[in-house]
Amino acid sequence: MPETTNYHMNSEDFRKQGHAMIDWIAAYMDNVESYPVMSRVEPGEIRSMLPKSPPLKSESMEAMMRDVDEFIMPGITHWQSPNFFGFFPANNSGPSILGDLLSSGLCVQGMLWATSPACTELETHILDWLVYMLDLPESFKSSTDGGGVIQDTASSATLCALLAARERATNFVANESGFDQTLIAYCSNQAHSSVEKAIKIAGLGKSNLRLIDVDDSFAMKPSDLAKAIDKDKVAGLVPCFVCATVGTTSSNGLDPLRPIGEICKSNNIFLHVDAAMSGTAALCPEFRYIHDGLELADSYCFNPHKWMFTNFDCDCFFVANRAELIKTLSILPEYLKNKATESGAVFDYRDWQIPLGRRFRALKLWFVIRHYGIEGLQHHIREHVKIAQDFASWVKADDRFELVVDPPLNLVCFRLTTGDDATQQLLDDLNDSGKIFLTHTKLNDKLTLRFAIGQTKTARIHVEHAWQLIQQTIEG
Amino acid sequence: MPETTNYHMNSEDFRKQGHAMIDWIAAYMDNVESYPVMSRVEPGEIRSMLPKSPPLKSESMEAMMRDVDEFIMPGITHWQSPNFFGFFPANNSGPSILGDLLSSGLCVQGMLWATSPACTELETHILDWLVYMLDLPESFKSSTDGGGVIQDTASSATLCALLAARERATNFVANESGFDQTLIAYCSNQAHSSVEKAIKIAGLGKSNLRLIDVDDSFAMKPSDLAKAIDKDKVAGLVPCFVCATVGTTSSNGLDPLRPIGEICKSNNIFLHVDAAMSGTAALCPEFRYIHDGLELADSYCFNPHKWMFTNFDCDCFFVANRAELIKTLSILPEYLKNKATESGAVFDYRDWQIPLGRRFRALKLWFVIRHYGIEGLQHHIREHVKIAQDFASWVKADDRFELVVDPPLNLVCFRLTTGDDATQQLLDDLNDSGKIFLTHTKLNDKLTLRFAIGQTKTARIHVEHAWQLIQQTIEG
Repeated sequence: MPETTNYHMNSEDFRKQGHAMIDWIAAYMDNVESYPVMSRVEPGEIRSMLPKSPPLKSESMEAMMRDVDEFIMPGITHWQSPNFFGFFPANNSGPSILGDLLSSGLCVQGMLWATSPACTELETHILDWLVYMLDLPESFKSSTDGGGVIQDTASSATLCALLAARERATNFVANESGFDQTLIAYCSNQAHSSVEKAIKIAGLGKSNLRLIDVDDSFAMKPSDLAKAIDKDKVAGLVPCFVCATVGTTSSNGLDPLRPIGEICKSNNIFLHVDAAMSGTAALCPEFRYIHDGLELADSYCFNPHKWMFTNFDCDCFFVANRAELIKTLSILPEYLKNKATESGAVFDYRDWQIPLGRRFRALKLWFVIRHYGIEGLQHHIREHVKIAQDFASWVKADDRFELVVDPPLNLVCFRLTTGDDATQQLLDDLNDSGKIFLTHTKLNDKLTLRFAIGQTKTARIHVEHAWQLIQQTIEG
Repeated sequence: MPETTNYHMNSEDFRKQGHAMIDWIAAYMDNVESYPVMSRVEPGEIRSMLPKSPPLKSESMEAMMRDVDEFIMPGITHWQSPNFFGFFPANNSGPSILGDLLSSGLCVQGMLWATSPACTELETHILDWLVYMLDLPESFKSSTDGGGVIQDTASSATLCALLAARERATNFVANESGFDQTLIAYCSNQAHSSVEKAIKIAGLGKSNLRLIDVDDSFAMKPSDLAKAIDKDKVAGLVPCFVCATVGTTSSNGLDPLRPIGEICKSNNIFLHVDAAMSGTAALCPEFRYIHDGLELADSYCFNPHKWMFTNFDCDCFFVANRAELIKTLSILPEYLKNKATESGAVFDYRDWQIPLGRRFRALKLWFVIRHYGIEGLQHHIREHVKIAQDFASWVKADDRFELVVDPPLNLVCFRLTTGDDATQQLLDDLNDSGKIFLTHTKLNDKLTLRFAIGQTKTARIHVEHAWQLIQQTIEG
């Protein structure tokens, strides 16, 4: 084979295949409603269709796309369907896909400022924009002692926050030689599973996570938090971390940040606020009450990849004291040393996260914000909340159903008054129909259906049809 | 505003803008050589060009792409240039970009099998393919007790491996209630900084990481490892984790896995093998010696996003005992429970990683493997190694230079015989020229230039030109 021969896709083929892929995605956007929302395959079914061995010779993109249609699509649960009401919104948009595509094409590393200055500076800039857009505390701005960074997920943000808390509590001894104090962390019993995961990863141990009781709206009881902290202190333990949640996964519970923050301040405990699911609502002034007291927090995150039309992954994580986070996560081997880092004039985002490498994720967020404008984002968030409130009113007016809690935002929790078995049957029937998809939780030990409204293509009509389907299904 | 009005990009606009973005990337691929490889901006320069406030109203994609050209491109260090020889290869390809684009378009979550079965099953399948392609031990196949998963980075893989090791050593007590034994970890003094980072994150503390000395080829000395373990055991400490490296960052050192593995086996220590940089070489039978003894390892990773034409992020992580990893990282809240998980017949990859959410990354890997075929991948890996060997021979033949170590694969380490200052000056002059980009390290306390060959568009001619430029630069 002559030296110039190569197997790469040339730019002409890339154009042709790229246009075809864009068209495929556009068609998917148009037709996504035609698929059953929940995949119907059995375990192992997809794998059984795939060739046992990898190909020795090059195959064509046309062959691959045939296989995508034939083998992959039956195994897709269509998160982008307007009839997807499960888990949480994970809404997507054209500008986000294109920003992410540009990131793939440039394929730069953002681990250091020096490895592509634009990757770092655009990110810092957009996260400052978001402080303004969500009216977050000034302390999270990069012009203060704080700043923002994009993480993959809220799980990772929680872990980073916990590590900073651990180091604060041990005066950075944990990093150096481990710790022998019993460090204690706190969250409500409705907090996300990632808090427990972080507690385990960071070496604190699950038994040192206190799950604080909640009130009727599934919000943490600050008085119970204060009592638990006092009890631990009396026992000679070291309270170091509280995670408050703005929008719990099960029911969208909103922990009261101000009293929690005051308790943390007076006990010198690191407060992280996990607003992964609901923080986006603060784009609209009328929903900013959810963040009341946030200026008392040490860190905060919310997920544009949930409810702000940005495809996964994109969690925005802010800290009030970036030096503390950086000191916690920084390591500087010789091969990463460079003049810009040494000058101290730049951020090296590898020191703000668990991994070293990072892609240029700010591009998609930049495109989304500019495409929609603040006005467009506000419009859609308001719509989702409004439709959810209407759905809740229909549930409330139908005495076959119980509305488990008044929904503050875009997640409606309800169940059949006839009990868990009937509710489970309804859930299974709805998901098996392929027409809509929703998921469940348990609230007050009772099986509860979660109806989350926030997908890009979800309009009032889809929610109306879903409600009709729910009624028809129980009527048999 | 009427209810039907919305701010979303419709599919017609998406087609138009998507085609334009594909064309932009194709043109970038064609013209990437025309940019200075290293960005020349000063700290703050990019931000100073960006508008202070986010837009209230929607902006056009055309305006955004003008800003990309004007504000972003000057701040890009061009990792995809054929003249990029810095850090490590991060090679990209058309099929990878298109697979990643498809992932963005489908925008499904792969946290559970049930959230999109194809996302999990294609990943398991492709990672089994890679066991075959790299001739890895059978124990890493999903049909045994092991299996593979895609992580974002090798840093995260190392952390997951360390956590499994910690739990094995403490019989899962660390997860439950923290640990009070002094757990000890080991790697060579050339291992990646992510080992130290993981040790800190997991709560072991940096002082409990032993940096084992290396031989003249910068490979870990197994006898020193054995001695260190014995010494720690005598002192009542608990050795729990060894990280061996296949291709160290500084110099491509290859730790001898067989003797290291035997030491680990006889001491019941978890062995993780970090082949992030060099594992890809095992696509070619003649390079598989780098993995000799790998069947003694508990886990292994390599990075297709470094040297296998797959855009970031894509680290392939394999374990021999998946139950141990899953038990370490698993948490099952009510809202994630589902029949498939309960059946035990499926993998839920959230239990194999730090975060909960995950994107459909197997698509790009599937496309890359099928586009190139095993034959195509082997061809390019061989070419990179061959060109690197030739470059090393030119360095060796020129008595102004010292070849610091015979390069086993595609990374050449060299310096001027006239000392660190002259070598630093050469590095600065080369990078400032904009014509090529390389980075440095220290080996045996002396400043050393690293010349990494592996970018997609790098051909022999680029390396020949680079060598000419290096010679011209020192000749003044």
